[in-house]
Amino acid sequence: MFKIRLLITALALAGSISVASAWEALPTQAPAPADNETTPAKVALGQMLYHDPRLSSTGTVSCASCHNTMLGGEDNRANSMGVNGQTGGRSAPTVWNSAFNAVQFWDGRAASLEAQAAGPVTNPIEMGMKSWDDVVARLKEIEGYKTAFAEAFGGQDAISQDHATKAIAAYERTLITPNSPYDRYVKGDKSALTEQQVRGMNTMQSLGCVSCHSGPAFNGAGMFQRFPMFDNAYLAAQYHFKKDLGVAEVTKKEEDKHLWKVPTLRNIALTAPYFHNGAVKTLEAAVRVMGKTQLNKDLSDAEISDIVAFLNGLTGEFPKQTMPTLPGTPGKTFY
Amino acid sequence: MFKIRLLITALALAGSISVASAWEALPTQAPAPADNETTPAKVALGQMLYHDPRLSSTGTVSCASCHNTMLGGEDNRANSMGVNGQTGGRSAPTVWNSAFNAVQFWDGRAASLEAQAAGPVTNPIEMGMKSWDDVVARLKEIEGYKTAFAEAFGGQDAISQDHATKAIAAYERTLITPNSPYDRYVKGDKSALTEQQVRGMNTMQSLGCVSCHSGPAFNGAGMFQRFPMFDNAYLAAQYHFKKDLGVAEVTKKEEDKHLWKVPTLRNIALTAPYFHNGAVKTLEAAVRVMGKTQLNKDLSDAEISDIVAFLNGLTGEFPKQTMPTLPGTPGKTFY
Repeated sequence: MFKIRLLITALALAGSISVASAWEALPTQAPAPADNETTPAKVALGQMLYHDPRLSSTGTVSCASCHNTMLGGEDNRANSMGVNGQTGGRSAPTVWNSAFNAVQFWDGRAASLEAQAAGPVTNPIEMGMKSWDDVVARLKEIEGYKTAFAEAFGGQDAISQDHATKAIAAYERTLITPNSPYDRYVKGDKSALTEQQVRGMNTMQSLGCVSCHSGPAFNGAGMFQRFPMFDNAYLAAQYHFKKDLGVAEVTKKEEDKHLWKVPTLRNIALTAPYFHNGAVKTLEAAVRVMGKTQLNKDLSDAEISDIVAFLNGLTGEFPKQTMPTLPGTPGKTFY
Repeated sequence: MFKIRLLITALALAGSISVASAWEALPTQAPAPADNETTPAKVALGQMLYHDPRLSSTGTVSCASCHNTMLGGEDNRANSMGVNGQTGGRSAPTVWNSAFNAVQFWDGRAASLEAQAAGPVTNPIEMGMKSWDDVVARLKEIEGYKTAFAEAFGGQDAISQDHATKAIAAYERTLITPNSPYDRYVKGDKSALTEQQVRGMNTMQSLGCVSCHSGPAFNGAGMFQRFPMFDNAYLAAQYHFKKDLGVAEVTKKEEDKHLWKVPTLRNIALTAPYFHNGAVKTLEAAVRVMGKTQLNKDLSDAEISDIVAFLNGLTGEFPKQTMPTLPGTPGKTFY
């Protein structure tokens, strides 16, 4: 799987392929895998599980703690804070529009939202559960979940890791933010973007940014890229981008060092700080860094300002959600 | 203020006053102070602030983290976990129906919801902000809050600690859970409680539990009580109830040692673990402890079972809320 992507990456890196970007609006529905059709009952259950801190060892961390559905789909922190105040080395990616990522996690190690959902729950520095068996045992003690799993998946004993992660993924597929100024613009409302934003859009095209940040989600549809492409001693000293090996942390292969999934630019204005390690605090600085590390160019202040203006136009409309009421555990506690 | 309450407490403790409890349903609206009328704009703003983790130093803790509006209004933990995984010595009280508490906090040191709301934000082990000035400075950098504060309070420069705490309190006054089986029962639906629950209700009456846990919220309407009333070496060794001095931690007076605000019994089945230090894990055990420490009685298993059944009948209906969309901080982060 990685081989194919590396080939694509290599082609893109060649630089000569300057695909004229077809500007596309964000779809309002996300495709679901054949074995996990999106249904209202699954979405309702998934929304509950996603917001339930009882899926963490301490009862203090839910999926939403780091991927906040009331904000830009993450936590605005360089590194998320898991159970007992622990932090890791990577910045939480946004959950909004994650349905349009071909693979999940910064290193793309999960092939689906379902696979991704299984990870953080048992990561010792994230949600800290010892095992999914322990999670399932807890859920089985919550009467309301028995009903909700039965409604979503049928059967009397429907609580399982497979069903829990499927429900969470089904919910996440509904977390789409359409109708950004950009979307309205490409659909024909030429007043939706300002002149400066259109200039920024054209600059991103001419510089080649959208060779990688391509497609409706500006995420390259599963493309991997080397970051940083060009070494720079000043930036290295300041931001330590290369401390984390990216894909190579998973594959242990030399050629995968510092390869990363191309992240979406949707709602990028709401997801500071930036990059895999969250080392860059502002969007202006992030655009400047990208020019230097990926294009070996010093972008002008005007170019940066235009691009930032355009990126602000990628902030979409957040769907109104009902706050879930989580089923109680009458008369006792897990902690 | 404390003197008056101590007098009431002393009278109640005399034991001879066995007020025939008038069983009352929970009001569906809470009274608001004259200087903070409940308005939709304030409630909407308050709901945002209540759920906004940017009110904490790390960006990881909101009011809702410990007083979870998706669950029983608290966190089911013995002690809440604040910024950087820190824990204190007391168990978070439920926010549901807190509008019906005459005073706030376990030791009653806040005279209103407004006063309470100011506390945790700058408590170093809770939300950890250095000062309210710092909170206000942050809020002023969030464009959407400028609008929301202006709508709620009028004026161009409406962001202040006073307005923030007023908005949070206005929101909290809407967090009421009516129509529990008990409420339906006292309103005339005699089938709303089971036979066992009615037995438990009568047992609570005859034992005198409702002398303190009186009124529609079963919280004594501002009464303070000594806990434990009767010393017991076994319970002391097991639960360390007397480590915390209660009201005396505030007043530093000998006579206030181990005085506590009478907590509500509404939704008590959802708020395990129990007591000010969260030392008791189950509702059964909590009822047994209360019998021993407050009445010096060994309640029978049948009595405990009946009372627990009744207490389960105090779980109300949780209002459907829309999940707030928090205004973003475009292009930057506070952490």
